[in-house]
Amino acid sequence: MKQKVVLAYSGGLDTSVILRWLINKGFDVVAFIADLGQNEDFKAAKQKALKIGASKVYIEDVKEEFVTGFIFPAIRANAVYEGLYLMGTSLARPLIAKKQIEIAKKEKAEFVSHGATGKGNDQVRFELTYQTLNPKIKIIAPWKDAEFLSQFKGRSDMINYANKHGIPIKATKDAPYSTDANLMHISYEAGILENPKLKPSEDMFEMTKSPKDAPDKETIIEIEFKQGNPLKVKNKNDGTVKTKPLELFQYLNKIGSLNGIGRIDMIENRFVGLKSRGVYETPAGTILHIAHHDIEGLTMDREVMHLRDMLMPKFAELIYYGFWYSPEMEFLRAAFDKSQDHVSGTVYLCIYKGNCMVIGRESKESLYNQDLSSMDVLGGYDQKDALGFIRLNALRLKASSVRNRK
Amino acid sequence: MKQKVVLAYSGGLDTSVILRWLINKGFDVVAFIADLGQNEDFKAAKQKALKIGASKVYIEDVKEEFVTGFIFPAIRANAVYEGLYLMGTSLARPLIAKKQIEIAKKEKAEFVSHGATGKGNDQVRFELTYQTLNPKIKIIAPWKDAEFLSQFKGRSDMINYANKHGIPIKATKDAPYSTDANLMHISYEAGILENPKLKPSEDMFEMTKSPKDAPDKETIIEIEFKQGNPLKVKNKNDGTVKTKPLELFQYLNKIGSLNGIGRIDMIENRFVGLKSRGVYETPAGTILHIAHHDIEGLTMDREVMHLRDMLMPKFAELIYYGFWYSPEMEFLRAAFDKSQDHVSGTVYLCIYKGNCMVIGRESKESLYNQDLSSMDVLGGYDQKDALGFIRLNALRLKASSVRNRK
Amino acid sequence: MKQKVVLAYSGGLDTSVILRWLINKGFDVVAFIADLGQNEDFKAAKQKALKIGASKVYIEDVKEEFVTGFIFPAIRANAVYEGLYLMGTSLARPLIAKKQIEIAKKEKAEFVSHGATGKGNDQVRFELTYQTLNPKIKIIAPWKDAEFLSQFKGRSDMINYANKHGIPIKATKDAPYSTDANLMHISYEAGILENPKLKPSEDMFEMTKSPKDAPDKETIIEIEFKQGNPLKVKNKNDGTVKTKPLELFQYLNKIGSLNGIGRIDMIENRFVGLKSRGVYETPAGTILHIAHHDIEGLTMDREVMHLRDMLMPKFAELIYYGFWYSPEMEFLRAAFDKSQDHVSGTVYLCIYKGNCMVIGRESKESLYNQDLSSMDVLGGYDQKDALGFIRLNALRLKASSVRNRK
Amino acid sequence: MKQKVVLAYSGGLDTSVILRWLINKGFDVVAFIADLGQNEDFKAAKQKALKIGASKVYIEDVKEEFVTGFIFPAIRANAVYEGLYLMGTSLARPLIAKKQIEIAKKEKAEFVSHGATGKGNDQVRFELTYQTLNPKIKIIAPWKDAEFLSQFKGRSDMINYANKHGIPIKATKDAPYSTDANLMHISYEAGILENPKLKPSEDMFEMTKSPKDAPDKETIIEIEFKQGNPLKVKNKNDGTVKTKPLELFQYLNKIGSLNGIGRIDMIENRFVGLKSRGVYETPAGTILHIAHHDIEGLTMDREVMHLRDMLMPKFAELIYYGFWYSPEMEFLRAAFDKSQDHVSGTVYLCIYKGNCMVIGRESKESLYNQDLSSMDVLGGYDQKDALGFIRLNALRLKASSVRNRK
Repeated sequence: MKQKVVLAYSGGLDTSVILRWLINKGFDVVAFIADLGQNEDFKAAKQKALKIGASKVYIEDVKEEFVTGFIFPAIRANAVYEGLYLMGTSLARPLIAKKQIEIAKKEKAEFVSHGATGKGNDQVRFELTYQTLNPKIKIIAPWKDAEFLSQFKGRSDMINYANKHGIPIKATKDAPYSTDANLMHISYEAGILENPKLKPSEDMFEMTKSPKDAPDKETIIEIEFKQGNPLKVKNKNDGTVKTKPLELFQYLNKIGSLNGIGRIDMIENRFVGLKSRGVYETPAGTILHIAHHDIEGLTMDREVMHLRDMLMPKFAELIYYGFWYSPEMEFLRAAFDKSQDHVSGTVYLCIYKGNCMVIGRESKESLYNQDLSSMDVLGGYDQKDALGFIRLNALRLKASSVRNRK
Repeated sequence: MKQKVVLAYSGGLDTSVILRWLINKGFDVVAFIADLGQNEDFKAAKQKALKIGASKVYIEDVKEEFVTGFIFPAIRANAVYEGLYLMGTSLARPLIAKKQIEIAKKEKAEFVSHGATGKGNDQVRFELTYQTLNPKIKIIAPWKDAEFLSQFKGRSDMINYANKHGIPIKATKDAPYSTDANLMHISYEAGILENPKLKPSEDMFEMTKSPKDAPDKETIIEIEFKQGNPLKVKNKNDGTVKTKPLELFQYLNKIGSLNGIGRIDMIENRFVGLKSRGVYETPAGTILHIAHHDIEGLTMDREVMHLRDMLMPKFAELIYYGFWYSPEMEFLRAAFDKSQDHVSGTVYLCIYKGNCMVIGRESKESLYNQDLSSMDVLGGYDQKDALGFIRLNALRLKASSVRNRK
Repeated sequence: MKQKVVLAYSGGLDTSVILRWLINKGFDVVAFIADLGQNEDFKAAKQKALKIGASKVYIEDVKEEFVTGFIFPAIRANAVYEGLYLMGTSLARPLIAKKQIEIAKKEKAEFVSHGATGKGNDQVRFELTYQTLNPKIKIIAPWKDAEFLSQFKGRSDMINYANKHGIPIKATKDAPYSTDANLMHISYEAGILENPKLKPSEDMFEMTKSPKDAPDKETIIEIEFKQGNPLKVKNKNDGTVKTKPLELFQYLNKIGSLNGIGRIDMIENRFVGLKSRGVYETPAGTILHIAHHDIEGLTMDREVMHLRDMLMPKFAELIYYGFWYSPEMEFLRAAFDKSQDHVSGTVYLCIYKGNCMVIGRESKESLYNQDLSSMDVLGGYDQKDALGFIRLNALRLKASSVRNRK
Repeated sequence: MKQKVVLAYSGGLDTSVILRWLINKGFDVVAFIADLGQNEDFKAAKQKALKIGASKVYIEDVKEEFVTGFIFPAIRANAVYEGLYLMGTSLARPLIAKKQIEIAKKEKAEFVSHGATGKGNDQVRFELTYQTLNPKIKIIAPWKDAEFLSQFKGRSDMINYANKHGIPIKATKDAPYSTDANLMHISYEAGILENPKLKPSEDMFEMTKSPKDAPDKETIIEIEFKQGNPLKVKNKNDGTVKTKPLELFQYLNKIGSLNGIGRIDMIENRFVGLKSRGVYETPAGTILHIAHHDIEGLTMDREVMHLRDMLMPKFAELIYYGFWYSPEMEFLRAAFDKSQDHVSGTVYLCIYKGNCMVIGRESKESLYNQDLSSMDVLGGYDQKDALGFIRLNALRLKASSVRNRK
C-alpha cells in the first residue's frame, strides 16, 4: 500500500511539479488548498491537482478563522516585525499547517509536504507547526531534498518537467519577483526586488492604489473595539456599517486599497540568518493596527503598555520565526490577552491618499482623566505632590552625581 | 545681598509674571532665553525681560547643539515614545536646564527657576537635570508653590498681575490650547484638545501644511547616514544639497512642512501618572526617523536590532520622563552607540502629501547578501542546512507536545 | 460624630503612640493586628490597644492566606529582589493593607493609618494598596505628618509621650536595630547595621541557628510540587510528612531554622531612592525557592524559562515597590501563572549547616529526554542535524565578520 | 600536498582517535593543546600526539588570558546561566577556538577540527567562534560526520581502533560520566548522571571537599574590586595576600576547594534543544560571584542594576550558546562594561563548610547614604516628600481602580 502525503497545494508551477514528483516517488498525494482570500480560481486549481494525479483534493475556506484566530490576535498585540511588517504571510502559515495536520489525521497520512524554499521563513513556519501539532508526522520538503534540488536547478527544469508530465502552465516566462497573497496582504520579494536600491514599478502593486491615484476626498471612518478586537466599522461618508469580523476586515481592505494605505518596503532579517528585501501591501491590517494602538492610548494602563511594548518585538519575532504554536507564545499570549481586558472604545480616522490619521477617540473604559469624572471626587491632582515626587526621583541621581564628582 | 536666580524665560505671559513675582520675592533674577529655533523675536523678549526687571538676560543660540547633541542621538536610537511621539519637547528640556546650570555657575546663582506646571512632564525634565548637574542647586518652581498657586488661580489673575506691574501682554484672551515650539516640533495640548474625541481644526497647525494642501508632485530625496548620523541630504528634484547638521535638519523641516509630513494625534502617559492628549508636528524628525530605521535594516545585525528594539521603549521612556542625564541612560547609550558603528549608507525617499516612503537604499556597510559578494566565496547557503536547523529548533517543541499529551 | 480610622497596630511603641496621637486628634481608632506568624502575645497587644483607647481591636489570623496567596505565588515566580532578598516583608504588607481596607468598609471608616516611616518601602506598599483597593480612602501617615514629625523627633519624645499617656513600654533603651517578623522571615535594619562594614553579632539572629551551631548530621527531605505550588514535604530522616500549606511551610521553617538556612546580608535599593542595608533570615522560603527552581529545570520549556527569567526582576521589583495589586502585576502574573502549568514533581534535598543542596529530582511532567521515552519513537536526535543548525546560526556572524573586515 | 588541519587535542581517547582518523583521511594534523589549568601532563600529551602522527604539537598556556579575558568579564556581568551555572566550560571554548584560528593562520591550515559531540553545546561554541574569527575556515567535526559516526558506534569501537593503530589508552573501562576541567571548574555529565533522580557519589568530586569534610574553623577573607575586577584577595586568618589575577584566582580556588564552596547540581537547557543534567564545582568563581554582586549593591545605581539584571540572562545565554564573539555580545558588553565604572571597593566574607557569607563591605565609590556625607549638605531626605511621591505613583492605580469598578 502506498504511503500517503498531504501536500499544501497552491495551483502554481512549483507545487504542481512537487505534486507530480511525489507521485513519481510512489506517494499517494492528497492536495490541500487553503482559501485564505487570495485571488485564485479554486475550482480550476482542484481540477489541475486531480489532472496531475492527486488522489483527493481538499479546498477549505479558512478566511473566517484566519481573521479571528490569527489576524485579530496579532492586531491585539500590536505585532509588527522589525518596526514595519504586519506579517500577513507569517500569520497564514501556521493555519495552513494546522489544517494539513488535521487532514493528515483524517486521511491517516503519515506525511505532509510543502513547496516552500530552503532559504526562507515559510519552511520553518510550516515545519515547526507540523511537528508541534503532531510530533510523529514525517515531513517531505522537496526544496531541501538533495535529489529534488539536483533535478530542479532552475525554473526551466520545472517547465520541462511540467511539459513532460502534462502539467498545465500558466506562463512560461520567469516572474520578475515572487508573491504571496491572502486577504491580509500581498508580499513581493526576490527577482528584481533583490537589488535593495531599486524602486519597484508602480504596476507591481495588486492590492492597493498608489496614494497618487487615490481619491481627492477624505474618507472618514470609525472603528469600534471591544477587548482589543474590532467590533464594528462605520464609513461616515456613506453610512456603511460592517460588524462581522471577516466582512469588516474585507471592507477595510476595500477602503485601504482605494486610498493607497499600507505599502511597505523594507530589508528584513529572516530566521535562517539571511537578510531579505520585502515589499508589502496590507491595507486593512494597517488601518486596524493604527486604530487599535490609538484606543490603547486611552484605555490601557501606562505600565502595562510599557511592559507590553518591551515584549512586543519578541511576540512579533515568534510569529515571524514560526513559533505561533509554542510554549513561549502561550506564555506571552496569557499576558497580552490580559492587557486587552479594557481595550474597548471607538476610534475616528481620516483616510486620505496613503494617510491613515486618527482624528479622535472615545471610550467608556477610558483612563483619561477628563473622562474619569470621579477623579476629582477622589481628591484630584495636587500640583504640590509633584515636589516630593521629583525630589525622591532625583535622590539617587544626586547621589551618583556627588559620588562621581569625588 | 539679594539671592540670585536663573529663570528659564520664554517671553510669554507665564514666565513674565514669574519673573516679576521672583523680583517681588526679593530675588535678583537673571533671565535665560534658549534659542531652540522657535519662532520668537528674541530681541523683543530680552527687552521685555529687562523692562520687567531682570538684572541680566542671556540669549543663547543652542540650535546646533540641540540638533547634534540631542535630536541626532534620539534618531540614532529610533527613539519613539509610546509608538508615536518623537519627543521634540522632551529632548529640548535637558538642554535648557543644562544651560541654566552653566549660567547659574557663571553668575554664582544658588537658584534656578522655570515656568512649567505641576501637572506635566517638563517640570520633571527641568528639575531632574538641574539636580543631576548640580546637586546643590535650589529650585523655585512657582507652579508647585502654595503661595503662588493661591495667588494665581487662573489666567485672569496673571493678566491682572501683569497689568498691575506693567508687564506687556500680547493677547488678553485665553489661547484655545497650549503649545511648545522648537526647530524639531510644535506640540499642542490642553484647552479644547482635552476632549479626546475632538478633531483639532486645520488652522491650529503652524509647522506643516495639511497633506491635502501639499503639492501634487512627489519630492524625491536621498539621505546619507554615517554611523547613524545624517551626513547629507540631497533633493533629487532640484539638486539641492545640505551637509551641515543644522542646515540639513532645517532643510528637511522645509520639505516635510511643505508636504504635510509628521503630524501625530495621540493619548500619551505622563510620568506624573496622568494621561494627556498631545498633537504634534515633527516634519524633519519624522523623515529622519523613517530613513534611519531603513538603513539599519540593511546594515545592522539581526540580534543587535532585536535587542535594541526591546530596549528602545525604555530609552524613549527615559527621555520622556526626564532622565536624559542619568546613570541608566549612560548604560543604555553605551550599547545603543555601539549598535550604530556600521549604520552608514544612503536612503532614497519619496515624499508626497503626508507620505514619506522609502523607495530604495544602498550601503558599503551592507549585510544584505546580494551585497556581500564574498558570501558565495564563503560557501554560500546550502538549503539542506535548513533541515537540521529546523529539526533542532523543533526538538523542544516536540518534547513539550509529547509531554502535554500524556 | 468622630471620624473613624483603622490603624495597623503592632503592639510596639510606635503604633501605640500613634494610636494615642490619633485619639488625641479626635479620631475614633479601630486597631487591627494581623497575625502573620510573628512571635507576639496577641491577647496582650489587644488589651494594650484597648487600654490606650482603641474603640475596637481586630486580630485576624491571616497566616494561611499569607502562605497560599502571597508566599507561594512569589515562590512560583522565583521572585528575588536584587538577586538575594525573598521579600518576606514586601509580601506581608499588601495583605495587611487589604485587611485594613476590608475592616474600614465593615466599620464604615473613612481613614486608615499605619506606622511605617517616611524613608522606607513599607509606607509605599501600604498606601498604594489602600488607594488601589479603595480609591476614596483617606490615609493618615504620621511619619510624614509635619505636626507629628515636629512633636516626635526621637525615641525619647515617644517614650515621654507614652509615659505621659500611660502607655505601657516594654523596654526603655534604644533597640540596636529595627526588625520586622512574620512566618516567612525576620528582617533587621537600621541602628548599628547602618554601617555596611559591620558584621552583625551572632545573637541578633532570632529565627535561625548559625550554620556553626547546626547539627552535624544531614537532613534529607523531599518536596513535591504541583503546578509550582508545594504539595508535600517529607523528612526522609524520620518520615515526617506535611501536606497542608501552612503546616508544610512552618515545618520547613523548623528544618531551615535548625540547620542555619536562609541568612542574607545585603545593600538594597529602596523605592524612595535610598540604599539600605538589610539582614534577613528566611529559612522555609529559601528551601522552597531552591527546590522550586530545580523542578522547573526538569519541567519547564527553555524559552519560557528564559523569558520568565528576564521578567522576574521586574516581577520582584513590583512586589518590593508595593505594586502587588496593580494592572502591570496582573499582566505579568497571567504569564507567570501560565508558566507553572507543568511545574510538578519531586525534589530531593540535603540540608546541612547552612547548605540546601539539591541531590535529585523526578517528575511525570519531565521534559528531560531520558524521561521522554517516546522521544526515540519520534526519531530521536540525529547528530548530523547540528551541522545545518550551526551553519545557519553562523550565517549572520560570518556576514558581519566579512563586512567588518572590509 | 596534504591539506592541513588544526585539531583541538586533549590527550584523551576521543581526540587521539580523531587525530589518527584525520591522518588516515590524508590530513596533515597540527595538534593544539590549551593549558587552561586542567590537571594534565602536557608533555606526555604532546608525546602522545606526536606518536599518533601529529606533524606538530602546540601547547599554549592560556591560563592568564582565560582569567582576565573570559572569567573576569563574566564575573563583572554577574553572568549565571539558568540561575546557577557559572559557565566554566562555556567560557573556555571560545578561547580554545580563537587559539586554533590563530595557529591555523600561522600554519596556513585551511581546516580546524574538534572532538565535541553533535549533541552538546561545545560544538556550537567552537564552530561559531571559528566561523566568526575566520569566515573562510573549513571545519571537520567528526562527531557529526556520517562516516565517522558509522565507524565509531560506541566506546569499544574507539578502543579497538586505538589498539589497532597503537594509540596508548589510559583506561579500558567506560568512565561512569564525562568531565571537563579547567581552572574555573570541573563539570560532570552523562553516564550515570543521566538519571536526574540519582545523587552523585561523593568520590566523584575532584575539585572541592564536601562541606562535611571542610574545616570546623571559619576562614575570613577580604576581596578588593576595582571597576568590577578583583584586585586583591587577603586571607584574614593568616594574612596571605594575592594581587595578580591568575594567582588570586588560584588562591580562591584553594580556599573554596578546602571549604566545599561552589557545588551545583541542575537540569539545564542546551542550545541544541535538549535538556541535560550537569554537576559542577566552581570554587573561586562562586566566591567571586558572591563578592562582586555584593559590592555592586553598595556602588551601583538602582536603575542601572535593574536594567542589567533584566539583561543578564541574555548575556549568560550568549556565553552558554557560543556567541562570545558576536555583534549582540559587543552590544551588551558596551553597556555592561559601562555599569562597572564605579564598582570598586572591598567585601568581607566568611567561608565555612559550603557557605560563603558576606559579612561586610566598604567603598570609596559607595552610593550608600551613610557614606555620602555630603547628602545632608544637599538637603538630606525630607520624609514629607514621600507624600507626593506615593500619591503620584498611586494616581494611575486609582484611575484603573475607578474605571474597573464601573
